[in-house]
Amino acid sequence: MKGNVLIVHGGAPTAVINSSLYGAVTEAKKYPEVDKIYAAIGGSKAILDENFKDLKEVGEEKLKLLLQTPASAIGTSRYQLEEADYKKMVEIFKKNNIKYVLFNGGNGSMDTCGKIYKACGDSGINVVGIPKTIDNDISVTDHAPGFGSAARYIAATVSEIAQDVKSLPIHVCVIEAMGRNAGWLTAASALARKEKGDAPHLIYLPERPFDEEEFLEDVKKLYDKLGGVVVVVSEGLKDKEGKPVVPPIFQVGRSVYYGDVSAHLSNLIIKRLGIKARNEKPGICGRASIAFQSEVDREEAVLAGRTAVKAAIECKSGVMVGFERIPGEKYQCRTVLIPIEEVMLHERVLPEHYINGRGNDVTDEFVNWCRPLIGGELREFISFI
Amino acid sequence: MKGNVLIVHGGAPTAVINSSLYGAVTEAKKYPEVDKIYAAIGGSKAILDENFKDLKEVGEEKLKLLLQTPASAIGTSRYQLEEADYKKMVEIFKKNNIKYVLFNGGNGSMDTCGKIYKACGDSGINVVGIPKTIDNDISVTDHAPGFGSAARYIAATVSEIAQDVKSLPIHVCVIEAMGRNAGWLTAASALARKEKGDAPHLIYLPERPFDEEEFLEDVKKLYDKLGGVVVVVSEGLKDKEGKPVVPPIFQVGRSVYYGDVSAHLSNLIIKRLGIKARNEKPGICGRASIAFQSEVDREEAVLAGRTAVKAAIECKSGVMVGFERIPGEKYQCRTVLIPIEEVMLHERVLPEHYINGRGNDVTDEFVNWCRPLIGGELREFISFI
Repeated sequence: MKGNVLIVHGGAPTAVINSSLYGAVTEAKKYPEVDKIYAAIGGSKAILDENFKDLKEVGEEKLKLLLQTPASAIGTSRYQLEEADYKKMVEIFKKNNIKYVLFNGGNGSMDTCGKIYKACGDSGINVVGIPKTIDNDISVTDHAPGFGSAARYIAATVSEIAQDVKSLPIHVCVIEAMGRNAGWLTAASALARKEKGDAPHLIYLPERPFDEEEFLEDVKKLYDKLGGVVVVVSEGLKDKEGKPVVPPIFQVGRSVYYGDVSAHLSNLIIKRLGIKARNEKPGICGRASIAFQSEVDREEAVLAGRTAVKAAIECKSGVMVGFERIPGEKYQCRTVLIPIEEVMLHERVLPEHYINGRGNDVTDEFVNWCRPLIGGELREFISFI
Repeated sequence: MKGNVLIVHGGAPTAVINSSLYGAVTEAKKYPEVDKIYAAIGGSKAILDENFKDLKEVGEEKLKLLLQTPASAIGTSRYQLEEADYKKMVEIFKKNNIKYVLFNGGNGSMDTCGKIYKACGDSGINVVGIPKTIDNDISVTDHAPGFGSAARYIAATVSEIAQDVKSLPIHVCVIEAMGRNAGWLTAASALARKEKGDAPHLIYLPERPFDEEEFLEDVKKLYDKLGGVVVVVSEGLKDKEGKPVVPPIFQVGRSVYYGDVSAHLSNLIIKRLGIKARNEKPGICGRASIAFQSEVDREEAVLAGRTAVKAAIECKSGVMVGFERIPGEKYQCRTVLIPIEEVMLHERVLPEHYINGRGNDVTDEFVNWCRPLIGGELREFISFI
């Protein structure tokens, strides 16, 4: 008997989440045992609402637009599921003849995915995870789709801002990168460098306690030497006590609103060092920008979608597609299936050997690991300054 | 007798200021009467310091990199010249056998350019302006190089952020565009729309006094109707009394530091309407991003550089290269030479007929005027939501 596929997106989107969707839909079309290819329109909440759309009849030309569409073309949600919801979902799968459930998301979504897998028990419904995160904080896998493009974005953006800083000249520019607990993306700004000494001149990661005095000392020293300093900081910097370095600006109900770390630090430079400074926060653009999509990332995202469908059809369940590097000179990755309980809610932060001693830069080892993921060299610039 | 060319960049850079430099250098190479092709390394201050670099021997392959290099490859400055400096400059020109002076910049630089022209008197030194501004606030000319690319950037960025807002969903997103007094760039965000009703849903320009109560009313109404609202605001919004809508956060010496308009307004939405909101400020990326360079803009920038050199060699002086539309269905522009005193320090703001009655959007007339400048359609997206 034929069964239906259901694809669900969870959490914040990336520049290639739709590429995985493309991979999954085009792969699912190949199998005679697949009837409908449902997308949940609006994340896991859409499962409960049975808000499904069949993408089987969507033509190849239209589907290809997924490769260049930012955000999630089928929506996503941050809806908090409750225990009872999982049982309800299994009933909905059965009612809709859904035999293959593909969950695309980050740590939170993989947790959901694992819980749905458990709830499905021996129902014959196969549940497979497709990893996705700009933060690269999913465990076990070498990296996850979405990271490479966001890394390319931050590296390219820092290299462009650095040209601007050099040419005007601006004195100090503090750029804020996404990633509240894991510094992978902040670290990736190091890929902006073509030569030793190029911007970014300082990189501060959330893995290390942030010391404002040390920071000001570092900035002052480089400013005196270079005249123009580019600093990249994580949005999630915390002090020794683990408290955010930016004080909350206001609170509404239970939600606390913080100011920008980059604004806070550039103001600090102005006030304490008397050096002109400005701050930049690329924000959502950093995860949505198709112009900076990494080709490697896009291809791996498609592959992750395909691999997940294949696994589900082959009755693999409770697994997430992961990537493993094949040793050798040239960058190559193979997909692996990782038991979902190994990744559920484990947040992977930047390991110590990727951070320098002073905690204000990354190591060459990190740069070498990261380089192939951004998909080719950044644009070459010329300067007569 | 042969003479030297001097090219100077002033003010903040654009994505195509180096394209004009490319046009000027490659054009100047053609003339036997041109000896050296000097670039002032660091704006008008570099003239006084005689910090010149000859670009004549730079090969075509290297020069072509100028077309994809953001910021100013020869530097720029915001140095305030004094009356005595102009006379000193003329002496420096004579001493260095500089007969052709090309000044690339915005309103402030055109003022400098005009003053240098006057100081040169009948010395036989020809001074020609090349317009450049992301703000599009230079008078007389239809538009200026730099604007088209910045317009493409803001339109593309708003269209990408809008996908993100729709898919997550985020409730209200306030995006801040550059242009303190002139709303051209903020207005260009309207080009993000493919269909009626697409984001941006509201556009607030610095040409109209900003009323916070009306703003909250507009946002509330659209939020109730759409569930996700994208608002674009100018960084320079002022209230009825002409005061910036954001209170100053601190002052150091004579410099007053303001917070972000977009952050102020998104906080206002959270506090007053109880609706979740976030803010985005693309900042420097908006003027530096080569990925969003408009082809039309780049070609016109090259043409402006070429035309300026040609004019100077033909002993035209005290003029700025401008653009004039050739009437007809298809977009075409020709260059014209505008007497520099007609543009000196006249700041051109968005005319009334480009703004709607309520002051929260642009008119179709503006969109039609602006569309050809961004250089081709934006990427097509697909959505199943």
